[in-house]
Amino acid sequence: MSTATKAPFILYTDGTPNGKKVSVHLEELKSIYGDKVAYDVERIDIRTNKQKEPWFIDTLNPNGRIPVLVDRNRPSTTGAEGFAVFETAAILLYLSQHYDPEHKLWFDVAKQPEDYSEMLQWIFFAHGGVGPMQGQSNHFNKYAPEDIPYAKKRYLEETKRLYGVLEIRLRNRDWLAGPGTGVYSIADINVFPWIRGHKFAGIESIDEFPRLKAWFDRIEARPTVQAGLAVPKTQ
Amino acid sequence: MSTATKAPFILYTDGTPNGKKVSVHLEELKSIYGDKVAYDVERIDIRTNKQKEPWFIDTLNPNGRIPVLVDRNRPSTTGAEGFAVFETAAILLYLSQHYDPEHKLWFDVAKQPEDYSEMLQWIFFAHGGVGPMQGQSNHFNKYAPEDIPYAKKRYLEETKRLYGVLEIRLRNRDWLAGPGTGVYSIADINVFPWIRGHKFAGIESIDEFPRLKAWFDRIEARPTVQAGLAVPKTQ
Repeated sequence: MSTATKAPFILYTDGTPNGKKVSVHLEELKSIYGDKVAYDVERIDIRTNKQKEPWFIDTLNPNGRIPVLVDRNRPSTTGAEGFAVFETAAILLYLSQHYDPEHKLWFDVAKQPEDYSEMLQWIFFAHGGVGPMQGQSNHFNKYAPEDIPYAKKRYLEETKRLYGVLEIRLRNRDWLAGPGTGVYSIADINVFPWIRGHKFAGIESIDEFPRLKAWFDRIEARPTVQAGLAVPKTQ
Repeated sequence: MSTATKAPFILYTDGTPNGKKVSVHLEELKSIYGDKVAYDVERIDIRTNKQKEPWFIDTLNPNGRIPVLVDRNRPSTTGAEGFAVFETAAILLYLSQHYDPEHKLWFDVAKQPEDYSEMLQWIFFAHGGVGPMQGQSNHFNKYAPEDIPYAKKRYLEETKRLYGVLEIRLRNRDWLAGPGTGVYSIADINVFPWIRGHKFAGIESIDEFPRLKAWFDRIEARPTVQAGLAVPKTQ
């Protein structure tokens, strides 16, 4: 970007799995489309609850959560610097809709309706299952002020069960959605950062899920993914 | 439907909030488009874990959850009687995409991109927040074999906080998405059955959320919604 023009996007984020989904997707898009998808990063320190402050609630996300993407190309409906999109998966679909016209990382609903639907199914599976349940495992294993073995076990086992569902899906496939053995897409990007955080949730290793592990290794090896994982700079 | 032709859809469901989302949507679509969206109902008794049986996992949903919609108009990829769609919100979007061409209950992404995105944002908000958290409140208040006050309080309070976010959204609106004060859409259908189950989760009344309550009453008064809530017949 020239210093005279502003990047089209502002990403309000922090170093969480949900935040990294969006920066990984943006880095993938940048490697294809260049400066059209350049973005400024505003780190929101969630340890100090900056995402619960009135300005954030009023203009970015009434739910008080990161990440939020602001698109300077479209008019604001909330007083932000552009159109604000919250909920990670809604951000990935928004970026795809408007900034991935060649369908490099998603499927064309008109031409590949079944692949498009399967992509959505796996996105919702992760959004309503892996994210919330692994989040609860993090809570009871790392943050809760009381030691509650029942809850620790409940969420650890549910998270592992959900990893097992991904393992079933990947039994004869390389990627979660797409024809044949699949095509790398936002369905994969949407759940990868959660799998990456397995140790934090109390799952020492994913060796018992060999197909998932191979899938994970393929994604992690991508330089674009590494670039996305390095956002935001926390030092 | 004539007795000689099969309904285009099979809905595998039970009497849960997630199941009712889909039957409400189907009844709304039937009131507009008639027999094109007729559906057979296969009740899956989740108390006996029918949704965890191998045939269900193999052909309908590897996650072992209801509801699943099977579309007899499209070829199966799994051995079901047609194309199988799991995850409630993915089903609502699939039905919209293929069976609501007049955009009566959703928004045209090409003509109303901001409304479409806001619809998705509120769908994901409910799918990753209200559903999973209220589900945990149900678990610790109704099903858990141990009495765990910390977990009861955690999920009850989080569910109420999420209702409060909906209240903020509805402050100057009648519906969650759409221009002006909004338009009734799948964003509303997607969360309504969860709000309907508030007492079961331990929230005695939603009177403290007056805009949400008015929204709820408007939806509940629709005959199409009542028809959808009556599915499946459990007697």
